[in-house]
Amino acid sequence: MSPIRNFDAMVTRLLSQASAPVRVAVVCPDDEATVEAVARGLSLGIIACRLYCKAPASLPAALRDYAASCTVVECADADEAARAAVADVRECRADVLMKGLINTDNLLRAVLDKQHGLLPPGGVMSHLTVMQVPGYDKLLFMSDVAVIPFPTAVQRAAMVGYVADACRALGIERPRMALVHCTEKTSPKFPVTLGYADIVARAAAGEWGDVAVAGPMDVKTACDSHSARVKGLTSEVCGHADALIFPDIEAGNVFYKTMTCFAGAETAGVLTGTMAPVVVPSRSDDAGSKFASLALAALTGRR
Amino acid sequence: MSPIRNFDAMVTRLLSQASAPVRVAVVCPDDEATVEAVARGLSLGIIACRLYCKAPASLPAALRDYAASCTVVECADADEAARAAVADVRECRADVLMKGLINTDNLLRAVLDKQHGLLPPGGVMSHLTVMQVPGYDKLLFMSDVAVIPFPTAVQRAAMVGYVADACRALGIERPRMALVHCTEKTSPKFPVTLGYADIVARAAAGEWGDVAVAGPMDVKTACDSHSARVKGLTSEVCGHADALIFPDIEAGNVFYKTMTCFAGAETAGVLTGTMAPVVVPSRSDDAGSKFASLALAALTGRR
Repeated sequence: MSPIRNFDAMVTRLLSQASAPVRVAVVCPDDEATVEAVARGLSLGIIACRLYCKAPASLPAALRDYAASCTVVECADADEAARAAVADVRECRADVLMKGLINTDNLLRAVLDKQHGLLPPGGVMSHLTVMQVPGYDKLLFMSDVAVIPFPTAVQRAAMVGYVADACRALGIERPRMALVHCTEKTSPKFPVTLGYADIVARAAAGEWGDVAVAGPMDVKTACDSHSARVKGLTSEVCGHADALIFPDIEAGNVFYKTMTCFAGAETAGVLTGTMAPVVVPSRSDDAGSKFASLALAALTGRR
Repeated sequence: MSPIRNFDAMVTRLLSQASAPVRVAVVCPDDEATVEAVARGLSLGIIACRLYCKAPASLPAALRDYAASCTVVECADADEAARAAVADVRECRADVLMKGLINTDNLLRAVLDKQHGLLPPGGVMSHLTVMQVPGYDKLLFMSDVAVIPFPTAVQRAAMVGYVADACRALGIERPRMALVHCTEKTSPKFPVTLGYADIVARAAAGEWGDVAVAGPMDVKTACDSHSARVKGLTSEVCGHADALIFPDIEAGNVFYKTMTCFAGAETAGVLTGTMAPVVVPSRSDDAGSKFASLALAALTGRR
């Protein structure tokens, strides 16, 4: 399988697998962007849906057109919709969970429920972003720009594993992962770099399969081969990173917002560490971004 | 004085003041990019130089051409050159200190010398970057992407003051400064946001003169007016930031490297908090960036 290098290629890959559409459980498909994204997936035949909603009769026309590939589940309210969708994912009636018009906190209450939720005991829930960046010749994976504020060693190791798995689901056989920092030296002055040294050693020992993990290194060293060459750095990661692991959410969020604000990046994102990928877009995400997130979830969530 | 909105306008402003060129002390003007940047300033007549070097006879031809506006000071070695240049800045024989082919650590030893250096007792040395960004309609000031790892409250307050002063030196009468974070809420979960609340209050009380300081807010809220409008944010800073204050060097460096790697940003930088601006470019900076830094120092260092 050749690596998927942009968002269109995600869709092409899903189309090639459309004989078995990915089953998506959509909680409250009542806002325009969610409906548009889901309808696009249905029209392409790459997903089948279970729709959890308060008033099936008022289901948007855009979705009613695809009734044949949808199951509608009537729920008393949004919280019940969340619980029902989560239960269906747990019991393998759906491969992906997607948030519609429900508060993220309410959805997460169902997702994180100790008895009936989607996070395995002792599991780490994190967030994966994938960016399509003008001028970069492949997709850029990253974690965590949204969920874990200051990763512990255990959380960071989990993030590395999730990102490696997602890269492989998109056909990147040996993901190149950069541990991002302002310095290139491991030093007690920056405690996170000591954690990075441990991650590099464990990666080399094979903990995450066939991966190339290097760092600390800065964003430019990771993504600009000229800059890496000038510095005389020879790691296969330098200048060609598939993925960036950030020291904390402050740095990760700066990258995310800077890339979308100044570099024309388009983004997809899912929660990771749960039994199935969870698509939790921001309210401000447009249909294109929600669809890209759905496609990412479909590629990483197929089971 | 109208605000300077790009690097060319910095030069235009300096040209308008060329009857009194800014006096620059250059330590070891022996590398190509430094020589080129300094020669350009001399050829425009916007600076006059004191050159501290080991072998005046081997001064590059590009500088010898401007002997009339240069004083050459012969020194036994780079450390002596640094000490001599620092002494001349202290004694007001130069307005700006600039690093040439000398290790940054060696130059800083002279700059930070308690008795003979350039940092006032109890002073805070920090770093200011100014970026010219394609698609952003003004210069973007920021601190600190290079020197202070994890700013204390005192250090952050100093940074705000330095950035405000630099903005004013470039004609921005009421600088709009964003305190950058991933969240928009002040919360004990993110201690830096509590410090931000204090900065906002002190700014409103006039501690830094006529400034608009707001935050926490993310990079996109600070720099993209559409994004700010969608969020319903009305601070005059949102969408129109002149300056970004970063939570720490990890986040600041991510912004700096991302903007230069992916957004085509050009940069200028100086050390601040010292008696005069100190230009300490990276070895990898090209002549254009060194010249922009020199111009920034000349504008902020005139006395």
